[in-house]
Amino acid sequence: MLKESIQKKIDLKTKPTGSLGYLETVALKIGMIQKTMTPILKNPHMVVFAADHGIANAGVSAYPSEVTYQMVMNFLNNGAAINVFCKQHQITIKIVDSGVDHDFPPHPNLINKKVRRSTRNILDEPAMNEDEYKLALDLGASVVNDISQTDCNIIGFGEMGIGNTSSSSLIMSKIFDLPIEACVGRGTGLNDLQLQKKIDILCTAIEKYPNVNDIDKIVQTFGGLEITQMIGAIKRAFEKNMIILIDGFIATVAIAVLYKKNKEVLNNCIFCHTSDEYAHQTLLKLLDQKALLNLDLRLGEGTGCALAYPLIQSAVNFLNEMSSFDDAQISNKE
Amino acid sequence: MLKESIQKKIDLKTKPTGSLGYLETVALKIGMIQKTMTPILKNPHMVVFAADHGIANAGVSAYPSEVTYQMVMNFLNNGAAINVFCKQHQITIKIVDSGVDHDFPPHPNLINKKVRRSTRNILDEPAMNEDEYKLALDLGASVVNDISQTDCNIIGFGEMGIGNTSSSSLIMSKIFDLPIEACVGRGTGLNDLQLQKKIDILCTAIEKYPNVNDIDKIVQTFGGLEITQMIGAIKRAFEKNMIILIDGFIATVAIAVLYKKNKEVLNNCIFCHTSDEYAHQTLLKLLDQKALLNLDLRLGEGTGCALAYPLIQSAVNFLNEMSSFDDAQISNKE
Repeated sequence: MLKESIQKKIDLKTKPTGSLGYLETVALKIGMIQKTMTPILKNPHMVVFAADHGIANAGVSAYPSEVTYQMVMNFLNNGAAINVFCKQHQITIKIVDSGVDHDFPPHPNLINKKVRRSTRNILDEPAMNEDEYKLALDLGASVVNDISQTDCNIIGFGEMGIGNTSSSSLIMSKIFDLPIEACVGRGTGLNDLQLQKKIDILCTAIEKYPNVNDIDKIVQTFGGLEITQMIGAIKRAFEKNMIILIDGFIATVAIAVLYKKNKEVLNNCIFCHTSDEYAHQTLLKLLDQKALLNLDLRLGEGTGCALAYPLIQSAVNFLNEMSSFDDAQISNKE
Repeated sequence: MLKESIQKKIDLKTKPTGSLGYLETVALKIGMIQKTMTPILKNPHMVVFAADHGIANAGVSAYPSEVTYQMVMNFLNNGAAINVFCKQHQITIKIVDSGVDHDFPPHPNLINKKVRRSTRNILDEPAMNEDEYKLALDLGASVVNDISQTDCNIIGFGEMGIGNTSSSSLIMSKIFDLPIEACVGRGTGLNDLQLQKKIDILCTAIEKYPNVNDIDKIVQTFGGLEITQMIGAIKRAFEKNMIILIDGFIATVAIAVLYKKNKEVLNNCIFCHTSDEYAHQTLLKLLDQKALLNLDLRLGEGTGCALAYPLIQSAVNFLNEMSSFDDAQISNKE
């Protein structure tokens, strides 16, 4: 009934039926999440989970793993793209150290949830042991617990971690039973030769663990700490009925893990950006989801969420502020 | 040299090369327009040109032509989608009466540039005579002259006019020598039967004027007044080196007319939205342009421009505010 009422409110706005396109889908979705005809966005947050990967220096990334901690410092100094876009849209940014191989000085925007300094190298052993995996899920959830105390009802998830497209590709390949070639991308800028090398390395990793098929075991084995904390965080955001903004490939893999356990999590998710990674497009199709933006971004950090945020505001605003045909005394379709 | 310098500045930001995708293209474009490494957006304006069409009640539109003036009143009362989105982004909105079949009371946001009440019905005679056509171009330019006095350097163009997709399709068909079927769409909501009727009517209109092939004659013959004023306005905005934001199908037809005379006009244009109209996608391909958004909008009014505006701000902001690899002491690609 509520769904029909919100749809009717949308249809009676002074515009041709359906002419606000995907914004109408978003308006309906947010109305349904908040169970109201007059939704509101409160105290938006962006959480960027950062961690290092034992596999990073094996040749899967164009950048050395020290870039993870350097970029965390850049986030704290407001120098990164995500800082610029969050500032523009008054989104509170929090950086979570999920497992960076570096000790940071305290900073008001840094949340220390370090499980260990980097995952283990999955070419040798599982990325996490079972205790570390469970701890990472719990710590991720605790980040959302704290943020929910600030009356926030919309939260975006981003990540930083040299090597984390490799973990994401492995998880995608395992949970959807797809060949690794269909799940891999150039990350932040591999050439053809480097890409083939990455595929070869990931095939070796897959073949090392033929009996890992349980979803939790898959994530524990292939990592990473930031992805695992993101899974815990998104699950808690869903339990708290927040609007969940999903960025690029890595965040979508986190959602896919949760989706495999409970499809309803998608009810609270808005997919913000289709990245340039082919695997991301495949993944969105598997989840039957469409993203708001398609700007050929391949940066991560949550940049897609921050850039899409004003469109989400627009969806809420048109629902709350536009006149209806009746209000404005306009002739509807003949 | 400037182009290389701006590109280098973009490439040295703390992100993988090219990873901000189309935002990088926009940042470079704006830097080149303003001939600076540190561009700035000043006093953004949205101008919505409105007019009626003699052909409107012949069966080409799903809505009666009285909706044109009713929607103008809605714009003045801040009830339409474009009002909501301009308010959200602090864009000054001006509505231009280019030729609505109605007398409006004075209003601070209404600019009276009425050439005549509605174009003539092109099934009987040309939409405008030569004097009306020239007057419309001049009046459109005068709107931009006035706005440029306010230190505005970025201006979006939208339109409202029941029947104006018909004029646009006819102009597109004539200037690109394409069959009308390739240039027509469902406007604000025609069904299959209505669409075929629209095509038949537009074929009749085309066949009535076999010798009209000069670009100015094409626009004068097929109208409308809002499209013509938009052409005059965009030309003046280009002469004043403003950033020009282009909305949907109708505004893109206006640009296409100018492009046929001077391809350089595209240097100042940012295409904001690919509309759901198939003909619009064709037209963007003909101009070799890509739009920022693709949200299945088919509303007009300039809504695509207003929704894309924060992305344009983001492009400028990242260029001005992000740290470079050197600033942030981050290792660049190996």
